Amino acid sequence: MSASPRDPSRRNENSRRAILEAAMSLVCELGYDNVSIEAIARRACVGKQTIYRWWPSKGAVILEAATQSLDPVVVFPDSGDLQADLRLQLTGIIDLVTTTGFGAAYCGVIAACQSDPVLQRGVHEQVIEPNIKGFRARAVLAQERGEIRADADVATLRDMLYGVIEYRMFHDMPLDHAYIDAVLEIAFRGVR
Amino acid sequence: MSASPRDPSRRNENSRRAILEAAMSLVCELGYDNVSIEAIARRACVGKQTIYRWWPSKGAVILEAATQSLDPVVVFPDSGDLQADLRLQLTGIIDLVTTTGFGAAYCGVIAACQSDPVLQRGVHEQVIEPNIKGFRARAVLAQERGEIRADADVATLRDMLYGVIEYRMFHDMPLDHAYIDAVLEIAFRGVR
Repeated sequence: MSASPRDPSRRNENSRRAILEAAMSLVCELGYDNVSIEAIARRACVGKQTIYRWWPSKGAVILEAATQSLDPVVVFPDSGDLQADLRLQLTGIIDLVTTTGFGAAYCGVIAACQSDPVLQRGVHEQVIEPNIKGFRARAVLAQERGEIRADADVATLRDMLYGVIEYRMFHDMPLDHAYIDAVLEIAFRGVR
Repeated sequence: MSASPRDPSRRNENSRRAILEAAMSLVCELGYDNVSIEAIARRACVGKQTIYRWWPSKGAVILEAATQSLDPVVVFPDSGDLQADLRLQLTGIIDLVTTTGFGAAYCGVIAACQSDPVLQRGVHEQVIEPNIKGFRARAVLAQERGEIRADADVATLRDMLYGVIEYRMFHDMPLDHAYIDAVLEIAFRGVR
């Protein structure tokens, strides 16, 4: 059963997609601070009110646009080797950071969070909590199989891996695949 | 040779101190975003121009105020046990974060950095580079004595330790002494 092009839910979905694409391309071109809801609406060919109907702030739109590009990358495959699986995921994240507008969007959102508790909650719900859940599920499998120690503190391990990437993003320090290997080497010597 | 109270350098030093104290107390009371150069000048009983003569922006004043409270805490003692020495330092940092205005000031500055390259450079010069230098010097001693592996990547180790603290600060997640122990356990199993 396919929706007709004039079906309201299809029309909404098209507008939603256009808004998120407009938000991401504008952040990429102008930087987070120079993007306005007006500019996003203009580029997406929708009214400002359409955006405000779905999102409470510019930060919330850009967070959703960033999450949409992050989600397919932050998956937790299971090849039976947690370190290799995380290497694949973490190098995917830094490719996203270094080759797309994601880095500018994400840094802008986290900066805005420092004075916007609603946006901070959005980051927790859309980025951090799903990551904690996915990481824990994969890490517990690894513990059951002896890939890592049964008593390793996987919550802290998770913080350290994603924390170091965000640290280097916020401080505008280079990130590459060799760096991820160096991080994983310390972390996995620590939990094996 | 003590400067007289009317000596210009003494007067300057008093104004400088009053400005930094005013900046820190205002961030603590109002939050970073709600502090203005005008309010800092008023509380410090100096003219706005005095502030602009020494600092290019509100962010730069608040960065220096934050650095001033951080500096005495981020020292690298040498008791012969790097993990114990870092535990002392890192728990000192989180005490500063959780019990003073430092956390609000630092998070505000890093947020502002995302759209202010001059301030970003200031953070590197005043916070990150001295920390890299101090950490490396202490870690090299530890390597020479076999406290940690001679081939451990101490630059990456440093990023992971301070990165995880900043990660939890920016995402408004709790930090306590037990958490620092959990981080150090993974990191030091990784480098011993």
